[in-house]
Amino acid sequence: MALDLTKYIASIPDYPEKGIIFRDISPLMADGEAYKQATARIVQFARDKKVEMIVGPEARGFIVGCPVAYELGVGFAPARKKGKLPRETVEATYKLEYGTSALYMHKDAVKPGQRVLVTDDLLATGGTIGATIDLVEQLGGIVVGCAFIIELDALNGRDKIKNYDTLSLMNY
Amino acid sequence: MALDLTKYIASIPDYPEKGIIFRDISPLMADGEAYKQATARIVQFARDKKVEMIVGPEARGFIVGCPVAYELGVGFAPARKKGKLPRETVEATYKLEYGTSALYMHKDAVKPGQRVLVTDDLLATGGTIGATIDLVEQLGGIVVGCAFIIELDALNGRDKIKNYDTLSLMNY
Repeated sequence: MALDLTKYIASIPDYPEKGIIFRDISPLMADGEAYKQATARIVQFARDKKVEMIVGPEARGFIVGCPVAYELGVGFAPARKKGKLPRETVEATYKLEYGTSALYMHKDAVKPGQRVLVTDDLLATGGTIGATIDLVEQLGGIVVGCAFIIELDALNGRDKIKNYDTLSLMNY
Repeated sequence: MALDLTKYIASIPDYPEKGIIFRDISPLMADGEAYKQATARIVQFARDKKVEMIVGPEARGFIVGCPVAYELGVGFAPARKKGKLPRETVEATYKLEYGTSALYMHKDAVKPGQRVLVTDDLLATGGTIGATIDLVEQLGGIVVGCAFIIELDALNGRDKIKNYDTLSLMNY
């Protein structure tokens, strides 16, 4: 039976700052059946697209993407913060509210022409996912879709990725 | 056919500092079949132990543990660095070469009496895994085993966890 996954999201008011409601996926991941059903929905979205690799940004993107990779029988490659990858990397910067940040991937993490699904827990302003897509494309990969557990509609992150087929399991 | 998983480990000399050989699991995770076989071996180790929850430390512990949780149909709970968890946490500190570091888990991440497998990519000195075990036990969980992709024998990490049944897929 399909679970109501919204029951597995913790909403924390005024975190990380006043006026923000933080949507925490950890209760969903901590429940075996809810985690399985969330993964199954992303797997179904991915199957039609002949996905060959999953890429997710540090660190909750790993929790979302790794079981999807496992179920599809494809690999997983992480997009990481500075100083976390030991071999040669590509870099993509993105804007934060104040200043910028950057993500990195190993140069051999995605092969040219490989069909990639990008996963993360949350689509907010789209900065992180935009940088992750940028990295995959720098490596010659083809981003065939993006999948999230939660999308925050008011932050318009979907505008930044409107050229990519996008799945969100829940919208707030 | 069982793959030789050692062929999927990148060895980087003099990283992060001179004299250290860094063992990088990213080629293993990037290969669908190698990732599947590594996961299957950990799942087999876990099945006899009636594991009810997987816990892994940030961030490579997620890549190892999440598909294991998925395959077993149990939940996954992360042990994270400071400031990453929005709700009430427990804390465990551990020694680094210079100074100390700390890991955190949500107070409701593991239920009292729950049977937990702890996963990480690498067993080195055992500091990270020791802190992760400490967190699980603070929450009343029962650590029924530890599983790693790689164990660095010379660093004697196994001495720190000798009371726990431990699997390493490869030893260096």
